[in-house]
Amino acid sequence: MGGDDAPAVVVEGAVRAVRQASEPLRVLLFGPEAELRAALAAQGATEDEALAIIDAPEVIGMAEAPVAAAKAKPNSSIHRGLGAHKQGLADAFLSAGNTGAVMAASLFILGRLPGVARPSLPTYYPTTKGVCLVLDAGSNMDCKPEHLLQFARMGAIYAQHLLKIEQPAVGLLNVGEEPGKGNDAVKAAYALLQQRPELHFVGNVEGRDVMHHRADVVVCDGFVGNVILKLGESIMTALPKMIEQEMADLGLAPEHQQTVWHVLGSLRRRFNPEDYGGGSPLLGIEGTVFVGHGSSSARAVERLILTAARAASLNLTRSIADAFNGT
Amino acid sequence: MGGDDAPAVVVEGAVRAVRQASEPLRVLLFGPEAELRAALAAQGATEDEALAIIDAPEVIGMAEAPVAAAKAKPNSSIHRGLGAHKQGLADAFLSAGNTGAVMAASLFILGRLPGVARPSLPTYYPTTKGVCLVLDAGSNMDCKPEHLLQFARMGAIYAQHLLKIEQPAVGLLNVGEEPGKGNDAVKAAYALLQQRPELHFVGNVEGRDVMHHRADVVVCDGFVGNVILKLGESIMTALPKMIEQEMADLGLAPEHQQTVWHVLGSLRRRFNPEDYGGGSPLLGIEGTVFVGHGSSSARAVERLILTAARAASLNLTRSIADAFNGT
Repeated sequence: MGGDDAPAVVVEGAVRAVRQASEPLRVLLFGPEAELRAALAAQGATEDEALAIIDAPEVIGMAEAPVAAAKAKPNSSIHRGLGAHKQGLADAFLSAGNTGAVMAASLFILGRLPGVARPSLPTYYPTTKGVCLVLDAGSNMDCKPEHLLQFARMGAIYAQHLLKIEQPAVGLLNVGEEPGKGNDAVKAAYALLQQRPELHFVGNVEGRDVMHHRADVVVCDGFVGNVILKLGESIMTALPKMIEQEMADLGLAPEHQQTVWHVLGSLRRRFNPEDYGGGSPLLGIEGTVFVGHGSSSARAVERLILTAARAASLNLTRSIADAFNGT
Repeated sequence: MGGDDAPAVVVEGAVRAVRQASEPLRVLLFGPEAELRAALAAQGATEDEALAIIDAPEVIGMAEAPVAAAKAKPNSSIHRGLGAHKQGLADAFLSAGNTGAVMAASLFILGRLPGVARPSLPTYYPTTKGVCLVLDAGSNMDCKPEHLLQFARMGAIYAQHLLKIEQPAVGLLNVGEEPGKGNDAVKAAYALLQQRPELHFVGNVEGRDVMHHRADVVVCDGFVGNVILKLGESIMTALPKMIEQEMADLGLAPEHQQTVWHVLGSLRRRFNPEDYGGGSPLLGIEGTVFVGHGSSSARAVERLILTAARAASLNLTRSIADAFNGT
């Protein structure tokens, strides 16, 4: 039931994922049963071995206060789905719904991994070489140096497993390259990051380094991460407006304008979550949980399902648990 | 002597400014006398009523530790220039040199305005409607709510005077629109901003709102401001690389590629500080001080000189002083 166009888009994404999957995949759909059945029918699909419906009559809205909703609606699709994951009926849980509610319910139902102080939600960021991982992307506002170190460690493990980067370059987002730059938390985090031999810490990276891919994993608090995430999302909405004005000023012929829009349309894909995973993992909890954008398309949901399935089969959560065991 | 190509570029900018100025303008050039004389000669100019050379034998390098350099080199161009401003021999001071050293020396020589806790360096940010003002842009790392409020007030006065916006819309950079979002400092700053009837406070603005010009003045701490400033600067370096790859993938004909580069070249101007003021004011000190980018071109220096002269003739500093008088 998560997302702006649920359940139609989510169900369509599930149908597509099952049809696309190269390995056996079973998707459990949680939500009001009749609605889900109708949505399946609209896709020309029916409940079967690969697509099961599990009734969850309550719905947590996108605008509901996360923690309150997570407590008040034990029969929501988020609760029932996480419960099924907890019981081992599902290997991963994903939602394009209320991010805060998914996080609160995940903490409540699944719990944090031992040693993890703050679970973190990363985001993919488009770069000249593909994507980098920025974390935290908005789930942790005021962060201590130790939190930033943990984000770095979890992000590096995620990049190793899911992005297949053997030794991910970890950068600390800062206002200058030199050690000693930054705010108090970041200065102290620099010292902590340097002390971890298991990390390939490349030092401070600046705002300009993110899209130029100076690091595979960019570490920052959730305030900064959320601001740059949304600033990045706005590039492909703001620039076309500016370009439109420029082309008008230049008096560019319509067919030439067409060429420019064609190239921009192609570029836009790089800024589209659909093309790199469909959403974000919630790292540091006792389970495999992914969260998609509220405006996810069916294709984004499809990608998110396949990414979550991959994370589960690659044992991402166990790798993080092992790394934090005893730290 | 400030900037990567000083004194040649700075002197060229001064010569251009004097020739361009629509009102009487006198530029005092501070630096090693012989060097400046040679630089003037290279521009086909000589010392005269409008262009005077004042010897300042010491030079503070771009990479020198700001506070130490500001103390150790009393005969630098920064010191002598600020000294002349302090004595009333100059109505404004500007430099494309070591920003930290200019700030430290400005505080030492000119001092803060009464009531201002932290002077602030704003930056212009390109938007779909022109530019907005983001402050702080890197001079203040860990900010208290009161500092953010002061940035808002100084930024609004600057926007009124220099950008000619009668009632500048002031937004607080945050992770969501709703009050109550954000880190501790920003939450508290929201409450302070709401209480100021002289501000047109439009509430929280998100990363995506900056380039879409949801506010004329965007308030944030210098850590976040510096990160988004540099991220913004990287748009016009990273995107062309991505576009090059896209055009290759699309197999676009060379003449069509040419069209795209033509439009991008035109767009690039919007992201070029040369076209909007040439640099940043240092707000909140007892004087009119502007700082340009180390890589400033002669045109950027020219703009910076004319902007600083305008700020002086518009009595920007007195307006800020009056507003903070008794607050």
